[in-house]
Amino acid sequence: MVEQRKPIPVAEAVKKVIGQAQLLGTEMVSLDQSYNRILTEPIIAKHPVPPFDRSPYDGFAIISKYSIGASGDNRIKFTVIDHIGAGSVSEKLLSGNEAIRIMTGAPLPKNADAIVMFEQTVESKDSFTIRKPFTPLENVSQKGEDIKQSETVIERGNLIHPGTVALLATFGYAQVCVSKQPIVGILSTGTELLDVADKLVPGKIRNSNGPMIAAQLARMGILCKTYGLSADKLDKSFEIVKKAAEETDCLITTGGVSVGDFDFLPAIYERLGAQILFNKVAMRPGSVTTVAVADNKYLFGLSGNPSACFTGFELFVRPALLKMMGAEKLYLPHTTAILGEDFTKANPFTRFIRAVYDGHTIKPAGFNKSNAVASIAKGNALIVLPDGTRGFKSGDTVDVLLLGVEEGSALWKIE
Amino acid sequence: MVEQRKPIPVAEAVKKVIGQAQLLGTEMVSLDQSYNRILTEPIIAKHPVPPFDRSPYDGFAIISKYSIGASGDNRIKFTVIDHIGAGSVSEKLLSGNEAIRIMTGAPLPKNADAIVMFEQTVESKDSFTIRKPFTPLENVSQKGEDIKQSETVIERGNLIHPGTVALLATFGYAQVCVSKQPIVGILSTGTELLDVADKLVPGKIRNSNGPMIAAQLARMGILCKTYGLSADKLDKSFEIVKKAAEETDCLITTGGVSVGDFDFLPAIYERLGAQILFNKVAMRPGSVTTVAVADNKYLFGLSGNPSACFTGFELFVRPALLKMMGAEKLYLPHTTAILGEDFTKANPFTRFIRAVYDGHTIKPAGFNKSNAVASIAKGNALIVLPDGTRGFKSGDTVDVLLLGVEEGSALWKIE
Repeated sequence: MVEQRKPIPVAEAVKKVIGQAQLLGTEMVSLDQSYNRILTEPIIAKHPVPPFDRSPYDGFAIISKYSIGASGDNRIKFTVIDHIGAGSVSEKLLSGNEAIRIMTGAPLPKNADAIVMFEQTVESKDSFTIRKPFTPLENVSQKGEDIKQSETVIERGNLIHPGTVALLATFGYAQVCVSKQPIVGILSTGTELLDVADKLVPGKIRNSNGPMIAAQLARMGILCKTYGLSADKLDKSFEIVKKAAEETDCLITTGGVSVGDFDFLPAIYERLGAQILFNKVAMRPGSVTTVAVADNKYLFGLSGNPSACFTGFELFVRPALLKMMGAEKLYLPHTTAILGEDFTKANPFTRFIRAVYDGHTIKPAGFNKSNAVASIAKGNALIVLPDGTRGFKSGDTVDVLLLGVEEGSALWKIE
Repeated sequence: MVEQRKPIPVAEAVKKVIGQAQLLGTEMVSLDQSYNRILTEPIIAKHPVPPFDRSPYDGFAIISKYSIGASGDNRIKFTVIDHIGAGSVSEKLLSGNEAIRIMTGAPLPKNADAIVMFEQTVESKDSFTIRKPFTPLENVSQKGEDIKQSETVIERGNLIHPGTVALLATFGYAQVCVSKQPIVGILSTGTELLDVADKLVPGKIRNSNGPMIAAQLARMGILCKTYGLSADKLDKSFEIVKKAAEETDCLITTGGVSVGDFDFLPAIYERLGAQILFNKVAMRPGSVTTVAVADNKYLFGLSGNPSACFTGFELFVRPALLKMMGAEKLYLPHTTAILGEDFTKANPFTRFIRAVYDGHTIKPAGFNKSNAVASIAKGNALIVLPDGTRGFKSGDTVDVLLLGVEEGSALWKIE
């Protein structure tokens, strides 16, 4: 007999999942370990940037009013009385047509208010002439022009990327307060599964979901504990799931969530007293994706079919883990693109198709069944086709979720 | 006096840089360490996928010809003689209207040629009836339908992402042959630089470029050696650069490449006998970016201005390192987007603007000078405006290079 399950829309499933997230604590990490972590406090400017008026060019600092009247026919001469590089401060005061030779990044001398670039001068030994007047603050990089003191530059919940690191370094964050990372377990279930190093035997296949999920976590900068393979035996699987759930914040299992005779996850969730958030989603692939919560911990029951498993991770596990870390940006980057070939199948459920996106057009990445593996390896994005549609044509605009954009492009497209 | 340098177009500069790449060797890493590495051999199918005809559903295996004539008025009955789950092989042979109960992933029994899904039956104790005929191979996942034996599924030079890991696992690659990673050194030059942990003092700023570049490398999965800070002193800097160049495949310095009185990198390159590929690029920011080669090793002289430094890394260092690793996709992902606000400045050189891209529109990420740091932290993309243009309007389509798409989106945009 087939158990009847009621499918819920993808958006509702996503909402249910992230609604259960328990915020993890915070920890301090050194700046050089902070890439890809989530900020748990805003970055507030501890000082203005730049911290002082400075020269953005190599040239000469002057008092601008002594340049009034300069022209091609009336070059005005300045005498150089000091010479500073970046990191040095001139103690000299300018008077009248005096100037200080100054390099990029050096602070503006006390009563100077403009910078003459080398290119704007004709130099002699200790002097130079100019052919145009300068206005106050001309060619000056002003204190606080980039960032004002006490300004909130980056909000909490943002991911720390290289630009964030530059900002943190600017303000002297040798240590950064970030969210702890979830402890994630992976258990691959199925009597048919062999380990990656095993020889293939009739009726069996190697476990590809476990290593794939570990890599999906690695892409997020998250480590995992692997609980290996579990054959489809209820009591033994229950013990492993129970132990794994105790040791982790989030346990991801693959397989065993459908309605087959040896699909024991539903029974295991029941024995654990877990709350099932849903066990059927109106999506292809991965409609049997099941998410449960026990003791405030996530139990993700992903499909054993590789494409379904992959998609289930990106749609549900990823935002849940990010939400646990207090992240503000939970979802895969979304864009639209031009479909590069016809896709004639009907879409009774929302369909996610592994696809190759080149920044403009997108095409399915090949053989499109939930148990396919080649198309996961070939794809770098997902085409999303709404439920209740059919007959998409080459040239149609479709929704796209980006994956794996870390790889980049084979072509340089900028002149 | 100002040295005259001849700027070269960005595309030419990129080409010059990657033309100098020396291929690094290969090494074996375990599958669970292979994410983000570059494949140095193609993935060739060691066996078909699936490796045998199998059931994609929970149901019953039958000989299709005995279903001929089934209809709502003429239900045909089958008797169940065996029961297998995934991972099990039935030894039974079917004859006539016999069937084997079979679960998703299990191999098709010897002489069966179709699968009846549970949903397509009315079950009794040891039998079931069907109301439609089945054709040969109906509901069968055929051996090799996803991947044929000996097929090249992924070419060498591709980055290993989670889907690649799934494919490698499928074919039993417990160890994967990948390119070695370059040894990259970072040296930040400038008398004005303080370490991140230092207290701010007049005329000085903290070194943000060094930690930023380390994070840009981390984003590529590459570690680095840091050579700390070097004041603008020629002899001492020369010794550090010489030592660092000996110890690395690629040395990235920041600062000291312009024409200021304390910009010693040009003199250091000369003393090293390095070949200068270029010392002026027709781009903003970062026109002083200098790339040299000595003893087959890269010397990247990036600007000391953070935005220029950041851009120089992504445009030149990143593809060079990828090329050294034998990667096929060297360049930042490219797309186009709708400009979300006017940008009125003239672009005498190709302009790269740190920007915020939401998948559809793009806006400059704030204060736009080469020494800005806030906009690097706020941006996730670069707008590229061609040289010789001016006056871009909100609504115009512009070139975009994607950065930091690892962060994703704050909005779920799929129903």
